[in-house]
Amino acid sequence: METMGKLKERILAAQGKLQSDLIIEDVSYLDVFSCQWKKGNVAVFNGAIVGVEPGLKAKRTISGRNKYLVPGFIDAHVHLESSMMAPQSFEKAVLSKGTTTAFCDPHELANVTGPKGLQYFLDAANKMQMDLWVMMSSCVPATHLETNGGGAIEADTLLNLAQQPRAYGLAEMMNFPGVLFTDPAILTKLEKFTGRPLDGHCPLLKGAELSAYAAAGISSCHESSTLSEAEEKLTKGISVWVREGSVAKDLDTLFPLINLATSTSVGFCTDDRNPLDIHEEGHIDYLIRHAIQKGIAPEIVYRCASWSVARHYGLDKNNLYGKEYLRVGAIAPGYQADLVLLSDKSQCAIETVFKKGKEISELDFKSIPTPEEMLSTVKASAPNAEDLIAPDGQVHVIGAEHGKIVTQKLVMNSNAPGVAKLSVLERYGKGGKPANAYVFGFGEKLNGAIASSVGHDSHNLIVVGSNYKDMAVAIQCLIKTQGGFCVVKDSAPLAVFELPFGGLMSEKDTATIKQSLGKLKAASKQIGCQLPEPFLQLAFLSLPVIPSLKLTDKGLVDVESFNFISVRAA
Amino acid sequence: METMGKLKERILAAQGKLQSDLIIEDVSYLDVFSCQWKKGNVAVFNGAIVGVEPGLKAKRTISGRNKYLVPGFIDAHVHLESSMMAPQSFEKAVLSKGTTTAFCDPHELANVTGPKGLQYFLDAANKMQMDLWVMMSSCVPATHLETNGGGAIEADTLLNLAQQPRAYGLAEMMNFPGVLFTDPAILTKLEKFTGRPLDGHCPLLKGAELSAYAAAGISSCHESSTLSEAEEKLTKGISVWVREGSVAKDLDTLFPLINLATSTSVGFCTDDRNPLDIHEEGHIDYLIRHAIQKGIAPEIVYRCASWSVARHYGLDKNNLYGKEYLRVGAIAPGYQADLVLLSDKSQCAIETVFKKGKEISELDFKSIPTPEEMLSTVKASAPNAEDLIAPDGQVHVIGAEHGKIVTQKLVMNSNAPGVAKLSVLERYGKGGKPANAYVFGFGEKLNGAIASSVGHDSHNLIVVGSNYKDMAVAIQCLIKTQGGFCVVKDSAPLAVFELPFGGLMSEKDTATIKQSLGKLKAASKQIGCQLPEPFLQLAFLSLPVIPSLKLTDKGLVDVESFNFISVRAA
Repeated sequence: METMGKLKERILAAQGKLQSDLIIEDVSYLDVFSCQWKKGNVAVFNGAIVGVEPGLKAKRTISGRNKYLVPGFIDAHVHLESSMMAPQSFEKAVLSKGTTTAFCDPHELANVTGPKGLQYFLDAANKMQMDLWVMMSSCVPATHLETNGGGAIEADTLLNLAQQPRAYGLAEMMNFPGVLFTDPAILTKLEKFTGRPLDGHCPLLKGAELSAYAAAGISSCHESSTLSEAEEKLTKGISVWVREGSVAKDLDTLFPLINLATSTSVGFCTDDRNPLDIHEEGHIDYLIRHAIQKGIAPEIVYRCASWSVARHYGLDKNNLYGKEYLRVGAIAPGYQADLVLLSDKSQCAIETVFKKGKEISELDFKSIPTPEEMLSTVKASAPNAEDLIAPDGQVHVIGAEHGKIVTQKLVMNSNAPGVAKLSVLERYGKGGKPANAYVFGFGEKLNGAIASSVGHDSHNLIVVGSNYKDMAVAIQCLIKTQGGFCVVKDSAPLAVFELPFGGLMSEKDTATIKQSLGKLKAASKQIGCQLPEPFLQLAFLSLPVIPSLKLTDKGLVDVESFNFISVRAA
Repeated sequence: METMGKLKERILAAQGKLQSDLIIEDVSYLDVFSCQWKKGNVAVFNGAIVGVEPGLKAKRTISGRNKYLVPGFIDAHVHLESSMMAPQSFEKAVLSKGTTTAFCDPHELANVTGPKGLQYFLDAANKMQMDLWVMMSSCVPATHLETNGGGAIEADTLLNLAQQPRAYGLAEMMNFPGVLFTDPAILTKLEKFTGRPLDGHCPLLKGAELSAYAAAGISSCHESSTLSEAEEKLTKGISVWVREGSVAKDLDTLFPLINLATSTSVGFCTDDRNPLDIHEEGHIDYLIRHAIQKGIAPEIVYRCASWSVARHYGLDKNNLYGKEYLRVGAIAPGYQADLVLLSDKSQCAIETVFKKGKEISELDFKSIPTPEEMLSTVKASAPNAEDLIAPDGQVHVIGAEHGKIVTQKLVMNSNAPGVAKLSVLERYGKGGKPANAYVFGFGEKLNGAIASSVGHDSHNLIVVGSNYKDMAVAIQCLIKTQGGFCVVKDSAPLAVFELPFGGLMSEKDTATIKQSLGKLKAASKQIGCQLPEPFLQLAFLSLPVIPSLKLTDKGLVDVESFNFISVRAA
């Protein structure tokens, strides 16, 4: 509960009986409630907005003339691990882009390390300057069709973790077949988390099945890839998070959904966005810019980026769950002073970001140590080239396409141009053998191998290549670095990017990470890969909750039947 | 928490694996999320909506062709006692008008009986078929300028009561001066209820003072009487409940506030609405009809009447506070089947009301006994006519105007035409003497007296008259009936309406109440009263939290200075 003192001081400050800390004068601020720009002097005291009109005095006054002030952006759904940055680098990177709050699902680290991964993020969130709300990962492992490091995380464990201050609701319920089949383990999770937000993940679900999923109380989804899909979800009470990740990009398809009527049920999220994209294109600010370019009125877009998500999750309410937090998502008295000052609203040109009324340079960023055990998580034995050989002839081939995490289920000859070899190797020392198959889409000229320890969601080692020898070398390389990405040609590494933190993240700063990724990208082009994002794309080829054909460490998965199929086509 | 069984059955029913109870076929239903009418088959299973499309089968199917289906209406703020009906009559009356949920503040009964009054409503709500959410009365007594029956209710008592299933947030914080002056007792209440909705009441508050009130976390107000006032509240994050009571009527003034952008922060409430108006004009349906007549699109109006209020209070979330309730406020899978079927959407012509999927005739209405002690609450000794004499000459006169609970502070001669005598007598046996003054507005031809045991919020006896003798007789009459209204002429009662339940409510059925009120109205006309609602209007003349001049049992109150003033003008 909030201390009396703070409440009293805020009431006094609003009346000018205590001096404010900061006033942004003469600024056009967004009134999210009426979705209009208002002219005012936004006053901040002790991290809270206390006024929007002239009349107050402050220690520091800055001019907002000809500028626009909007509430800090909220990422409605993000796997922070996909930024490849540890939390202390992540927050610096996204705060500078205006993202002041995020709802994260740490299921990547949880798959690698079990409940300790969730605990790590809960601890990190306590130290972070941005508001990171940790959703409890509902599907670890994502399916029974794969092997992960941390085993299964059950409902009771999640509910225990959820008692901690920065824990929120239940993270994306990817096992929608489990919901529809009323799997008792799934229903127990939904039931235990009743009263908290239940996040969804139901790509292409529709009709009676979507109704059943909604009837289970699941109230958001970030997996709409067609407009009609998103419209149906909205009508069924499922808030739509428009996603623009590094691989999955839905904004171009979904922007016609957004208007004044729908805006309070639509938000933005990044889901999986890599550090290069965050650095070069932006974070939620990128979605904002893009949406405005598509012709949506800026005030509607900024509303979606802040208040709408806050409202969905109840952050616009006083201290949800009795915790000591200010309301978030609007520029109004009593709300947390999470503010983005823009020199141009249509371009989302960010001039200054204020978190709890402080500029980024004033924030007291804390170092967040990585637990020692999370720095050595790749325990696989190196395979020989022969171990990677897949059955040949007429085979089922995974069809990969730029910008899509949904794959095609193809039947091709294993020697056809453009068909590359693909292996997934269990990496947690549980004695698994490589699962071997084929993928199409990396290009006809591929000559070498690309490997990754990021392989959603179990994060086994995944490698694509034109020949088995380079593939084996690439896996050996990742075992040595304890995770990361590498590009191999002629049996030697061309470029390596180490991700020793759970095989997922780097503890390096953003600039170093950016440089390493740049080298990797160049190397992948050099070996003839035609996909602009081969690493992230590779990382999704093992995720069996996204249609249509995927390869896990246990074998080739037909997502529609939710079962294994043989590599050889009948 | 919800039982697994219900969750499982709902998921199965949505997929047609269990037969639904009811389907409303081929109906135009309101999608509140996109604010559009959609065509569909709305299916209900065990009180919950499970589908909106064709394909399911049900035990009972009704045609919705050429009809409209909207979510049940929500009264955002009501003093149920002002309906003069005990809860079991109230719910029958308003359910038939489409109101399926209400947030009540039982501060009338709490002023009369103390915390027992709150407990009574919490118990009643448990037995009722409509969803009655009980806000914890924050201002009992309303001020220190009056005497009530139950004494002061402190923060700890409220918080203890708030642990019960049907308790919700903190009811209207009428003591806005106390908030602004950071009165410790007031701040303790706000602080203890942080995390729950804090309702407001701040007539005419604006600028820095309104900011301070908002900064305290208060997030709604139903007391806007001008458009600019309502607009400023909205901008400051205070949801606006447009009120149309029997006396205070704000819709004509406030309707321009309502549009697609603001609609999710605007709701409707009745506050104080008498049984005649409920019966003849309607309840929330009346506001809907009226708003549509003013030119607001029906889909926006119905959204305000349901989802917007549900969202504000978090009823659209799963089981707020971990209680076993379905989501409310929309027609979508998983939401409670509170539905209103309309033959005409513009006229809000109600054909059938469904509460948890049942028609009103199918509901299992329970009798709710009145505690014996609440049937004898008028303990005043009868005064003589001489006890009621006010100082004469140039005097401060309360200016009353039809349809307004705000009064004017006038200075007139006590003998001027239209100036009537007014007395308030403490009724709880605490030994108070009558407070005597004057009122203008009941008409120049008034000849007799009108008395009431309903006198907001302390509910002492209040009497207006042309002569002291009739006034004394009127008070005697109310002592005999243990409360109610009466009209006296020539020292004899012309009409009496008994309200023995706390001096506020009748246990009679709606038809009987309506008949009695009709007789009273006729009698008040007969004695020359020109106000169409003299009883309700009289009942507000003692409420010192509404500007400008009021009379309590302790004396004449200048609301602006929040202190007593002499009857004689200086």
